[in-house]
Formats: sequence, C-alpha cells, structure tokens
Amino acid sequence: MPSRRNFLQSTALGLSLFFAVPFVAKSTELSPENVKSVSAATDPLPVGIAGFTFARFDLNKSIEMMKRIGVYNLSLKEIHVPLNSSQETINAALAKFKEANINVYTVGVIYMKTKEAVDQAFAYAKKVGVTMIVGAPSYDVLDYAEQKVKEYDIKLAIHNHGPEDALYPGPKDVYDRIKNKDPRMGLCIDIGHATRAGVAVDKAVKEYKDRLFDLHIKDVSKAEKDGKAIEIGRGVIDFPALVKALRKIGYKGVCSIEYEKDMADPMAGIAESIGYFKGVMAAGN
Amino acid sequence: MPSRRNFLQSTALGLSLFFAVPFVAKSTELSPENVKSVSAATDPLPVGIAGFTFARFDLNKSIEMMKRIGVYNLSLKEIHVPLNSSQETINAALAKFKEANINVYTVGVIYMKTKEAVDQAFAYAKKVGVTMIVGAPSYDVLDYAEQKVKEYDIKLAIHNHGPEDALYPGPKDVYDRIKNKDPRMGLCIDIGHATRAGVAVDKAVKEYKDRLFDLHIKDVSKAEKDGKAIEIGRGVIDFPALVKALRKIGYKGVCSIEYEKDMADPMAGIAESIGYFKGVMAAGN
Repeated sequence: MPSRRNFLQSTALGLSLFFAVPFVAKSTELSPENVKSVSAATDPLPVGIAGFTFARFDLNKSIEMMKRIGVYNLSLKEIHVPLNSSQETINAALAKFKEANINVYTVGVIYMKTKEAVDQAFAYAKKVGVTMIVGAPSYDVLDYAEQKVKEYDIKLAIHNHGPEDALYPGPKDVYDRIKNKDPRMGLCIDIGHATRAGVAVDKAVKEYKDRLFDLHIKDVSKAEKDGKAIEIGRGVIDFPALVKALRKIGYKGVCSIEYEKDMADPMAGIAESIGYFKGVMAAGN
Repeated sequence: MPSRRNFLQSTALGLSLFFAVPFVAKSTELSPENVKSVSAATDPLPVGIAGFTFARFDLNKSIEMMKRIGVYNLSLKEIHVPLNSSQETINAALAKFKEANINVYTVGVIYMKTKEAVDQAFAYAKKVGVTMIVGAPSYDVLDYAEQKVKEYDIKLAIHNHGPEDALYPGPKDVYDRIKNKDPRMGLCIDIGHATRAGVAVDKAVKEYKDRLFDLHIKDVSKAEKDGKAIEIGRGVIDFPALVKALRKIGYKGVCSIEYEKDMADPMAGIAESIGYFKGVMAAGN
C-alpha cells in the first residue's frame, strides 16, 4: 500500500498514483498510531458547563457560546429558565437545546430554604426532565428533601460554597449531613470553593467517591478564603492530580466548568479553561 | 501551628485564633504539596505567539490580546512592524512591547527570494535586536543567507509550509538543505503544515533536534493536504507525544502558538489552544 506521504508527494508532483511503490516508513513518517484520532485512548471524562458561567447572557447567547467552545453538557441555571416556568416555557427552551445538540444533564445550583422551595426545585427538575438537582438545602429541610428524592427518584447533589457558606463550606460539610441518608443524596464538589476552604480536592474526590455526583471545575488564585476566580491552569489547583483521582475512582459524572471571572466578556477565559482541562486529560493517561 | 483550615474555620466562626490547637491533618486537608504553585515541577517549555495569529489586528490590539491570554513571547511578524521600518519606528514598537513585558524573541516568517530580501531581513532583525530570524529563503539565496548568518551572528530558522510549499513542505526538506551549513542555520518546524505533509511531528522533533530552533504550534483537522486549522486539541496532532519529545530532546526554544482559524475573532480559539497546550505540559511530567 502506498503511504499517505507517498500519496501526497506523488499527487503534488502531478504524477500518477501508479508510481507509488511499497514503502519502508522513515522515522518521521506519520503512521496510524501517530494520529491521535485513530488510536489515542478516548477521554472518559465528559466536560460540561455550569450555567452560572453565562449569568450575564440570555439563553440564545449561552447556546451560541457553548457551540463555539464545543461543550455540549449543561447544568441549567434558573437565570436562563426560571424556576417558576410553565412546562410550555421549559419545552421551548429544551427545543433550543436539542437543536444545538446540548444535553441538559442537571439543574442548579438551586438554593432551598423552605419546604416550598424544595417542592419547587423537584417540580422544576421533573419538568426539565433531568435525573439530578444540584442544590443547597438548608439543614432543616434536608429530611424533607430526602423525601422528595425518594418520591421523584431524582438525585440531589449538594454544592459547597467555600468559607463564607454557613451551611456547606467544603465537601465534608455536605458528606457528613447526607452519608446516612438515601444514596441518591450526594455531592457536587465545587473545587474552587473547596480549595478556598482548605480542602485538597484530589483527596476529597477519593474520600467521598461513593456520593460524588457532579463537579464544578474552576481554578482560584489562592488556596485561601480571598482566593479569586481565575482561568483554569493559572491558579493553585493541581489539575493533573484531580484528573488522576477522578480516573482512579471511575467518576461517571460530568466535569462542568464554571468560570466566574470577566463575566461580561468571558469567552477567552472559558475557552482557555476548557482547553487546559482537556489538555490535562489528554496527557494524563 | 494552626492549619489554614483551622484558621479559616475559626475566623469564620468569629472565634479567636488562640483557640486553634495543634492539628493532625485529615485526608482531605490541603497540605503544601497539594498546592500546585508550591511544589509542582516548573514547566520547562516557554509558550509564545507567532505574530501572524494577529494578522487582522494592529500592534496595540495584538499586545492587548497577548496580555489577556497571558503569553509574553512573540515572534514578530512584519504585518505589525514593516520590514522597511526605520530604527525609530522599530524603537517605538519595541517600547510598547517592553511596557507590556513582551519579549520579542524572533521575527518572521520572512520570505526571501532575492539577495536584497536576505539583506533586508538581517538588517531588520538587527534593528529589532533579535538573535534569530524565522524565514523561508529560496534555494538560490541559501548560500548568501549563510554568509549573512555568519556576518550578523543571527540564526536562521527555516519554516516548512506543507504540501503546497514548493521549497519546504516538511522539516526534512529544510534539514537536508541546511545540515551541512553553518550550525546557526536550522528549523522552525510548523507542526500543522508538517502534519499535513505526512510527518509525525514528535518523531521529527527528535530526528532534527540538533537544528531545531523554533516551533509553530497549531492543530489541523486532518493529517492530509486539505487539513484545516483548528483549535489545539480538536484536531489530529498528538500533543502529549509532542511535548514528551520536546522534553526528551531538552528543547530550549519557544513553543509559539500560531492560530489561523476565525482570524477576525480569534480570542476564544487562541485561548483554548494555549490552555490545551499548557494543560498537556502540566500533566505530561
């Protein structure tokens, strides 16, 4: 068989393909195993976007931005489809996502301070058609939320929001509250807020693996309370260690990037963040 | 010493720091080795930008874009500072780069079909103050270019431009022409064009390591002549293998990203490309 290089050179020179002869590959020749798409291990960690990333943009613009960055899993935020929406309004939004090949895999973060808020969240999730809510229920509605998890068969992944969060600063604060509850109650570890709370996120991923349902992926400038959101790779989080940990536990969820810097003009930062995370995954086998 | 986590929790609760007591680290506790900036191996491959990336933008806007993406090594293209510029014009541009902390490490790609073009290129490089030109000299001025390399003590890295390039389709076409010339004549391997020419770029990097001075880093949609420019990581080039090869040879040059898609609105693609390349490097140790 003629090699690709022979083919290219022959046709570039205007020669007939019949001149191509059996060929011993030279050391710099491209062979199938050098072409990533042919043989490299397929990346097992799906990437998504947490909808809060697009807080300053409407639904249509958010969809356009997701297409540009090539990310098709979305954690839908109520900024884009309000919690009190009718089924018709939700269906209209879902049709737009479907047209764009975007998979709405969860909703949230939804804050729930009352039973009514819990009711609304689960009714909303059902209308959207997702099997998981990312939420932050107050302690006194946790038992009620567990009832709803069972009633709807919808998972609840509780989100940690860092040192300022009176309820769930880090993943342990979530885990300790749900570890004895229904196994459909678990964690959405926000790795940026967890890092600001002094948590090693690669270790946390392993520690809470049995209840790890979702991730908010971001970077922070410092592993301290006043650490700021920053492009992934420019901050202090050890992403190779995180990805290694996720692979070790066989993480089956989505890695949703949540970018909270330059929110009025976020495309460059989102794209850099997605690129970095994908690069780490590609090299981390 | 109180741990950071103790510190944060204590202050969050409004308690005195004096309550903090010696502390046995829990498994999810952040310790110095978990914070990337403290202990991770420093990346040995500097990243740059090939000026053609900003072909549709002026000098000021190019500088602004480089600052946004956090890349401070530039291969200056004559689009932004013309080849026939006076020293004064060049100095004014250099002052802008210096103010932005941008290191102009080379100029090019400069095409040289005549001795006069070679003269102009070397005079330009001297005025810019760089020690290397990325160029594409016609075969019949190669000997003259070698004279100028010696006269100016400025290196010449010859750039390959893929199957359409009648002179230098791939790195071997460069190498074979310069391997017996002055050791200051070498290669700027354009990995996208090389891939389109059927070259395995990780192998080429090792094969031509003694003359590898510069790199144009990009991705292409196919390892064929009609492969198109695409965000790094979305195409067919095996970047983990490339980075591994560069580390193996102890590459001392710059990895200059050249992004040639969406050239009127390139920020997202540039940022994704830079992010991916950095992610691969971070994980590839």
